[in-house]
Amino acid sequence: MIDNPYYSHEFHGDYELVSIGRLDLEEGGSIPDCELAIATFGTLNDARDNAILIPTWYSGTHQVWREIYIGEDHALDPTKYFIVCVNQIGNGLSTSPHNTGDASISMSRFPNVRIGDDVVAQERLLREHFGIERLALVVGGSMGAQQTYEWAVRFPDKVLRAAPIAGTAQNTPHDFLFTEALNEQIWSDARWNNGEYTSNKEVLDGLTRHAHLWGIMGFSTEFWKQEVWRALEFESKEEFLEGFLEPYFTAMDPNDLLAMAWKWQRGDVARHTGGDLAAALGRITAKTFVMPINEDMFFPVRDCAAEQALIAGSELRVIDDVLGHLGLFGVAPTYIPQIDDALRDLLAEEV
Amino acid sequence: MIDNPYYSHEFHGDYELVSIGRLDLEEGGSIPDCELAIATFGTLNDARDNAILIPTWYSGTHQVWREIYIGEDHALDPTKYFIVCVNQIGNGLSTSPHNTGDASISMSRFPNVRIGDDVVAQERLLREHFGIERLALVVGGSMGAQQTYEWAVRFPDKVLRAAPIAGTAQNTPHDFLFTEALNEQIWSDARWNNGEYTSNKEVLDGLTRHAHLWGIMGFSTEFWKQEVWRALEFESKEEFLEGFLEPYFTAMDPNDLLAMAWKWQRGDVARHTGGDLAAALGRITAKTFVMPINEDMFFPVRDCAAEQALIAGSELRVIDDVLGHLGLFGVAPTYIPQIDDALRDLLAEEV
Repeated sequence: MIDNPYYSHEFHGDYELVSIGRLDLEEGGSIPDCELAIATFGTLNDARDNAILIPTWYSGTHQVWREIYIGEDHALDPTKYFIVCVNQIGNGLSTSPHNTGDASISMSRFPNVRIGDDVVAQERLLREHFGIERLALVVGGSMGAQQTYEWAVRFPDKVLRAAPIAGTAQNTPHDFLFTEALNEQIWSDARWNNGEYTSNKEVLDGLTRHAHLWGIMGFSTEFWKQEVWRALEFESKEEFLEGFLEPYFTAMDPNDLLAMAWKWQRGDVARHTGGDLAAALGRITAKTFVMPINEDMFFPVRDCAAEQALIAGSELRVIDDVLGHLGLFGVAPTYIPQIDDALRDLLAEEV
Repeated sequence: MIDNPYYSHEFHGDYELVSIGRLDLEEGGSIPDCELAIATFGTLNDARDNAILIPTWYSGTHQVWREIYIGEDHALDPTKYFIVCVNQIGNGLSTSPHNTGDASISMSRFPNVRIGDDVVAQERLLREHFGIERLALVVGGSMGAQQTYEWAVRFPDKVLRAAPIAGTAQNTPHDFLFTEALNEQIWSDARWNNGEYTSNKEVLDGLTRHAHLWGIMGFSTEFWKQEVWRALEFESKEEFLEGFLEPYFTAMDPNDLLAMAWKWQRGDVARHTGGDLAAALGRITAKTFVMPINEDMFFPVRDCAAEQALIAGSELRVIDDVLGHLGLFGVAPTYIPQIDDALRDLLAEEV
């Protein structure tokens, strides 16, 4: 176990750790005591039909959802809905390589976890802890979109509406390679020591290079050309890297990032249908809005649109954002209104 | 000096080393005896007006031009034109960090060379060695496009036609960051030893990661999704990486790659006009076809089109190729016909 102050209430506000007990994993092995870090907003109504689930993305936590997406002035309105944001396994708040007290799975010994394991864990949490059997909406971005798709395919009767933002149901080979390159930045740091470092600060070099790859792929070419970072009050692209991307990623735990990356690389709902993606997406009964970001360099619109075409009754709602994938942070003032419009329309759909 | 068998006639066919003497550099310092590796095709006519210049791209040499672009069945027809392909300084065949016998500039001591230095060197070579004062065409891809633009802006009277393929006149900030990440793969290899390795094989790890970044950015997302590598008779994307991209880049010299990268990052014709790109491109009198590749991830069409709009009488000829930037290798059977059509049209233009 490593004490990393980034993974704390100071940085991530209120959240609660809920144990769901032993979680047996698709790849074998288990997490003996799986704790999910959750943040809830609003109140579950008596009919228990106003619940919204938000799974988190790679490197993300519930906090960005609280700060950017959730509020009375947003579609994700806690005065109407009971919103449960569940941090994915391995993200540093839920059970993760760096924070588990269980030496059998800590650090380099953390087992491989799949998107499906997260969804099974979340379903158990919602059912056993909150008595929630059906979700008015599952919405998530990037790896959160992967989990959203997994929910809609694995538990079609439990998901009334689904909104995967900037992510795919079946990870693409290009995405696999991008993620592998992120991993390689960590693996190639001599001080990574095969995952047995004593502080993430030892892996500063690898994490910094990792941040730089996000600079290439996380935003769009046009983000850099238009110097959109000036809106964040930086004076140069170098300052933006040093003042934004580098501190963001170097604060994190390398093993945690690797655990999430492994999961991301292998997200694929077609595992339920012997590799048949159309059959898997054909299982979805949720009203689904597929919401790619037009400038996303690694979840391009066409990849998302191809999946959307396989989902009955679904709609493609393209989000316009020059920030590209990391538009998910909600930096552009035009971003959240588009998300809100789409989610309000979706939540208004009778299902 | 390092003996690297990749930079040999065995791999690069016939070429000739021509000394242009001392080359003083824009950044200060000089190359005391600058040798340019050149390959020529065809015969200079008596009027000396049938010369075509081809500068090379990052990591490339004249050889791909000989194998793919030049021939009687192509626009670059040696029965009509005298074609001079000049390897850029630092590419491993012309004077480069790894091959210079001059200890004052070898390896880590190699001076910074700019695109403009290459173009000055090429102009001197053509004039002094061949007596060529005007070029029927300058055509190049990627960094070759940078040199093409530099020619057309620096020596407008000497360039009748220009065809920059998949490259820009002013390097973009995104491109700078991509190239920097390529460099970081080398710099982060402990055995790089600040450029004082004794064999490129010592930097295998860094060069391999460098190759992997080309996997992400060099091709398109759709290249991977459609498994276009199957056309090259590989069975998996991993085999393609291991059998194509890795051997291609790990054969090369790290200092040579870094020298070219430094140049690439700072390509900018607006250096001639105090930073005014429109004024610089306004100098161009060559008939210019700007030829981006539609799936290029780091020289996207819109960046090229924005520059084309600033060049009087120019045309935008977008090349359709799912391979993206590395479509330049001419793998797709549909690629070269598009290049030939455009270059034939361009060469047919009265100027």
